[in-house]
Amino acid sequence: MTLTADAIWKDVQAIRQQSPLVHNITNYVAMEFTANALLALGASPVMAHTAEEVREIVGISQALVINIGTLSPAWIQGMREAMAEAARRNVPIVLDPVGVGASQLRTGTARELIEAVPPRIIRGNASEIIALGSDAQKTRGVDSSATSSQAYETARALSKRYGCVVSVSGATDLILQGDQELRVSNGTPLMTRVTAMGCAASALTGAFAACNPSALHAAAHAMAVMGIAGELGAEQGHGPGTLPMHFLDALHHLSAGQLQARLRAGE
Amino acid sequence: MTLTADAIWKDVQAIRQQSPLVHNITNYVAMEFTANALLALGASPVMAHTAEEVREIVGISQALVINIGTLSPAWIQGMREAMAEAARRNVPIVLDPVGVGASQLRTGTARELIEAVPPRIIRGNASEIIALGSDAQKTRGVDSSATSSQAYETARALSKRYGCVVSVSGATDLILQGDQELRVSNGTPLMTRVTAMGCAASALTGAFAACNPSALHAAAHAMAVMGIAGELGAEQGHGPGTLPMHFLDALHHLSAGQLQARLRAGE
Amino acid sequence: MTLTADAIWKDVQAIRQQSPLVHNITNYVAMEFTANALLALGASPVMAHTAEEVREIVGISQALVINIGTLSPAWIQGMREAMAEAARRNVPIVLDPVGVGASQLRTGTARELIEAVPPRIIRGNASEIIALGSDAQKTRGVDSSATSSQAYETARALSKRYGCVVSVSGATDLILQGDQELRVSNGTPLMTRVTAMGCAASALTGAFAACNPSALHAAAHAMAVMGIAGELGAEQGHGPGTLPMHFLDALHHLSAGQLQARLRAGE
Repeated sequence: MTLTADAIWKDVQAIRQQSPLVHNITNYVAMEFTANALLALGASPVMAHTAEEVREIVGISQALVINIGTLSPAWIQGMREAMAEAARRNVPIVLDPVGVGASQLRTGTARELIEAVPPRIIRGNASEIIALGSDAQKTRGVDSSATSSQAYETARALSKRYGCVVSVSGATDLILQGDQELRVSNGTPLMTRVTAMGCAASALTGAFAACNPSALHAAAHAMAVMGIAGELGAEQGHGPGTLPMHFLDALHHLSAGQLQARLRAGE
Repeated sequence: MTLTADAIWKDVQAIRQQSPLVHNITNYVAMEFTANALLALGASPVMAHTAEEVREIVGISQALVINIGTLSPAWIQGMREAMAEAARRNVPIVLDPVGVGASQLRTGTARELIEAVPPRIIRGNASEIIALGSDAQKTRGVDSSATSSQAYETARALSKRYGCVVSVSGATDLILQGDQELRVSNGTPLMTRVTAMGCAASALTGAFAACNPSALHAAAHAMAVMGIAGELGAEQGHGPGTLPMHFLDALHHLSAGQLQARLRAGE
Repeated sequence: MTLTADAIWKDVQAIRQQSPLVHNITNYVAMEFTANALLALGASPVMAHTAEEVREIVGISQALVINIGTLSPAWIQGMREAMAEAARRNVPIVLDPVGVGASQLRTGTARELIEAVPPRIIRGNASEIIALGSDAQKTRGVDSSATSSQAYETARALSKRYGCVVSVSGATDLILQGDQELRVSNGTPLMTRVTAMGCAASALTGAFAACNPSALHAAAHAMAVMGIAGELGAEQGHGPGTLPMHFLDALHHLSAGQLQARLRAGE
């Protein structure tokens, strides 16, 4: 398996041309930044969470992104119905188990949702992936205290159990499905000092999954684009406050040349 | 009917002097940007949605802005009560039917709210206005796929039916009440790549309606100020990430000279 | 009582080294900015509000920050349980009575929460502190119409009644506990034209309280850091739109020299 700038660029162009509608049921913290990241990439975001309307919204969407930060019972019900409808319509689902391991509610909800309707892609940081796959790990809130290589065995096991792609973010992102693996080493540590960057990565993964039938490549392309736009944003900005807006500008202006010059991919 | 920079400037000065309290029941995505847009203009925002307190908050407010993005049953009840109280106290109501047409919940709620208490101003993009007024239109999420001129007949019919102003955003904004019409052609397409710009337009419309007894002029002045601040913001920024903050700076510093130089109004 | 740049710097270094987990139950408007302010300072934010998980989240946190903007019944129940658990575990609690006085729901909830579990620190603007402590004051939404010196007697009475620190923001911030008082005169009026600045101050107060056992000094240090980063942000920016991101950059880069050069403290 290889990851090439050409293949990423093809997806970026497809997203800009097709402007896929990405339905997000996400946490309150990340809503605005997620919507702006999708718009900057060229996709079209819609946020809708209540059980009374999620099935219809899934019905007009090209991807569904589920993010379990700031959970509550009514939202969980919305997530269940949206995922069931997406499965019925074959709309790709990305699930981000934010803060799984920090409470029984989060761990139980993430596992229940995945058991009921295995998503096409599970995307989280290393601590979250480990906590999702084993009871050994206790996460400390929503920030990762593990590296993606520490999550390797758990990610493989989750991928095999649910037949899905697992995308683990970190200094090196690990994206795998069964025995196929891709790695991306773009990005900058400053991105971890900005909230909702991981949530945005999951949303962009949804946009790529809407346009690329290979969930493995879609997930890897999204992480490469996140990392490269993050590097550009950090270079234009002067800290975690100015990074996000320059990241969005970079997403909007992202070129084939920038992808070629900056992609750091491995197997 | 004409729209002049002098009349807009008079309203901007009134808002800065009076700092009207604008009560917003709006969606999660738009909350922060909406509050910051009102503050930058010189108004004072308050967000409160629960049925247990909205009547009291309306009671201290000079305008009420209802935005149906990210709906849920409890919020709809808050909207009903807030609108009833605003009608009782003659507080101007602006209603933004975000994403109407995308689900039965949104379409039904928007129509029910408007039937129960006709707002002074309905403000939406062309797809939303068409979907609100007819069952022919299916919206695609929250972004518009129609032009304001395509919404012309529906906007007129809505205005006549409910005795309200209808403000339709687009490359050219159309603002009408019965047979009176105003048009504004300010703004830049980049604003459509930033979330919550339409929601902010509705909130600013509330601030203008608090200070100008002509709802038609208030609505048109708000769209002109949105468009001109958007142009200034786009010129200062380098993409959809840096546009919003420069837009807010521009709102805060907006001058009579800038209004004179940039207003593109028609009938 | 004196406030020194050295003591503030010691706390800033402790926060950066320990990265305390700060659990926030806060309003929808302030969520993203609050999380980013904590990250920029060096702390780790977690947002969780539902009664089903708040006790566990408190159990892994080093501070709890309760903010009553955008209240609803389910959230109030989450606040009650989180505060009870924090009291049981001796986790410091900061309570921000946003908009208290604007509705019976806000006033009643703030008072009920404080009576049930007196927080270690109450932090609000002058109008809010006056409204919390007496029925004479009617607040006008969430913005202050009083000065911190006008809130002096009420703040003293609240502090004595509940045995807590009261931190009153204003042109001069007043922080007192019983007969001990500190004052900070940093900051800029432009900060009042940006939403969620007060909410961020409360969140930073939580981070300082996690690392400094003196709640009085923790509260004062947080206000000094807010004010100084706000001054730096306003100098780097060009209005209320560009202030917040430069404020976050300044928080991230804050140095001992900047604290020494800018601290304006009094008794």
